[in-house]
Amino acid sequence: VPDTAPLTRRTPIPIASIAWDADAPVIIDQRRLPDDLVHWRLDTVDAVVEAIRTLAVRGAPAIGIAGGYGMVVGLDETGGSEIGPGEREALASILDSLAGRLESARPTAVNLSMAVRRVHRAAAVQVDGPTARAAALAEATALEVEDRASCAAIAANGRVALAGARRLLTHCNTGRLATAGDGTALGIVYAMDAAGELDEVLACEARPLLQGARLTAWELGQAGVPYRLIVDSAAGAAMAHGLVDAVVVGCDRVAANGDTANKVGTYNLAVLARHHGIPFWIAGPHTSFDLDTPDGTAIVVEERDPEEVRTARGHRLAPADAPAWNPAFDVTPAALVAGYITDVGILRPPFGSELRAGTRDLTTASTGASL
Amino acid sequence: VPDTAPLTRRTPIPIASIAWDADAPVIIDQRRLPDDLVHWRLDTVDAVVEAIRTLAVRGAPAIGIAGGYGMVVGLDETGGSEIGPGEREALASILDSLAGRLESARPTAVNLSMAVRRVHRAAAVQVDGPTARAAALAEATALEVEDRASCAAIAANGRVALAGARRLLTHCNTGRLATAGDGTALGIVYAMDAAGELDEVLACEARPLLQGARLTAWELGQAGVPYRLIVDSAAGAAMAHGLVDAVVVGCDRVAANGDTANKVGTYNLAVLARHHGIPFWIAGPHTSFDLDTPDGTAIVVEERDPEEVRTARGHRLAPADAPAWNPAFDVTPAALVAGYITDVGILRPPFGSELRAGTRDLTTASTGASL
Repeated sequence: VPDTAPLTRRTPIPIASIAWDADAPVIIDQRRLPDDLVHWRLDTVDAVVEAIRTLAVRGAPAIGIAGGYGMVVGLDETGGSEIGPGEREALASILDSLAGRLESARPTAVNLSMAVRRVHRAAAVQVDGPTARAAALAEATALEVEDRASCAAIAANGRVALAGARRLLTHCNTGRLATAGDGTALGIVYAMDAAGELDEVLACEARPLLQGARLTAWELGQAGVPYRLIVDSAAGAAMAHGLVDAVVVGCDRVAANGDTANKVGTYNLAVLARHHGIPFWIAGPHTSFDLDTPDGTAIVVEERDPEEVRTARGHRLAPADAPAWNPAFDVTPAALVAGYITDVGILRPPFGSELRAGTRDLTTASTGASL
Repeated sequence: VPDTAPLTRRTPIPIASIAWDADAPVIIDQRRLPDDLVHWRLDTVDAVVEAIRTLAVRGAPAIGIAGGYGMVVGLDETGGSEIGPGEREALASILDSLAGRLESARPTAVNLSMAVRRVHRAAAVQVDGPTARAAALAEATALEVEDRASCAAIAANGRVALAGARRLLTHCNTGRLATAGDGTALGIVYAMDAAGELDEVLACEARPLLQGARLTAWELGQAGVPYRLIVDSAAGAAMAHGLVDAVVVGCDRVAANGDTANKVGTYNLAVLARHHGIPFWIAGPHTSFDLDTPDGTAIVVEERDPEEVRTARGHRLAPADAPAWNPAFDVTPAALVAGYITDVGILRPPFGSELRAGTRDLTTASTGASL
């Protein structure tokens, strides 16, 4: 039975997009937002896979953590947690199978695969089921704790980068629902609001899946942060009307030269910001930097189901047979970016070798270190 | 009982957004598109007002024609059509009252007011009810005929202006549903398609009211024109992917210096087009040029109900109490415009005095004259 809370309250409530509770992760079912706040206990691997696949849990960090906890759930469900010290091959086989099932929930989500593999490695070196289960839980918990610390560091660095910009514009959802902490780009918004440094944030709705309208608006409303929702195409008018001091967005993947893949519409905002002389910032953990991708031309744009364009929250907008082009994200060239706000520091232009060197260090840097 | 036709057909059907039939105008109820093709006979002034107010009929030209025919319906309904030659004051009073009711249906629609006033003037100089009714019908019919001719001239000029641009991007709905003819920007698309000059048109959905998704997609599908629907924020990605040779949009109002007010999102497209070196064209009848407005700063942006942003076709997207900013249109500076495609010719830069002189002539120029 879903646990539904009324959404009329204005007192801030703590939002945990995902949390471990006794023997299973509990998530907020984001498909039901903003209408209902429903928690979902993922007590089988199938449930974890289903939650990830259907975007009940979403946001790269949150998905990774869900996958990590899914490994623990899977060990319990398959009896792997009780395997004796003499059966390490059986344990390895179970871990391989679980990792494969979880990774396949969203095959293109690099973060999910990395998280699952990390938990797999931690468990696979143990001598028996109980220690493997304990190691898996410790590693999955570490993913959650690290993500929370990463969000806090991004927020602190963001306050420095965006100092004086009291009216921000953001895109999609990069907040408490996308991470285990306060978020990346939206985490900066929360920190600035708490410090009295924010007048207003404009939230783009982010068609077609409306993460801005459904999730960011809900989050900000719950937290009492002053905001207004706009349709994506009103961003230019907002800038022309002087409503925006800076743009700050998240990132799916940053190439070695700084070109950045993110939710479709990000590139529009970057071009508009440049036209208006408004700084355009990208926020994300250092793990979003992919040095194996030299530049944006190497990023293949995922095209999603045209039905997403023809509908909104399942309701039909366009003719059922209307052909549609539905790129999931776009690529913003580094030349349009004022800088990158990461958990380990702020990267400002010129990028190039600095970005390459900086982010190479990042891959081993401890959270909170400065570039 | 509404006359509903199945929408699965692929054979082009004639679309008359508005047509006079015996003693009343019949419109396509655009609120029901794209789900159902329903015609609505507007046989009372209240029905005409309701149809205009609720956007059952929309598009500046179509609204003007509806208002004009509404005057005829009103004369019949009030007995004005039967007033004798000795009661010219009673006739004038009826005409004033009808014009006031019809103009109030959309107070900010200049085109509606101009059309209603024009029919009012034609009727008010007649000697009795029957001749006033005949004059009103003749004038309203002239509005429709002139609009059809205007669309044809825009389409012909557009083929010249856009020669060689086989992949177009457009916004909102400026086609057969918005006019009595083939449309303005979309009329050019139809003409180029008929001439084998079009590979594809990308149609932006035009949030919040989705005229692109609901109406343009439906129109183009009915006509068999190759198109794909995109969310508004995918326009930048489309240009970056080389899918767009030119952008062509309509206009609500062009100021004396060329600054142009149009559906929100138009300005975004103009900035994106400039960034990509893609020509950005504006199409519209010469009556859209308002020489009393010196430039874009004199245009007050209408802010509409935030509920439009929180919903899509009546379905809730965002929290019910989410604050939203909902500008109905935006202003594109003349400097971003490749040129204006009108019914009386093509205006290319530099504008300034040329535009001013050209459009001053336009106000008396006959349809089809060249600048």
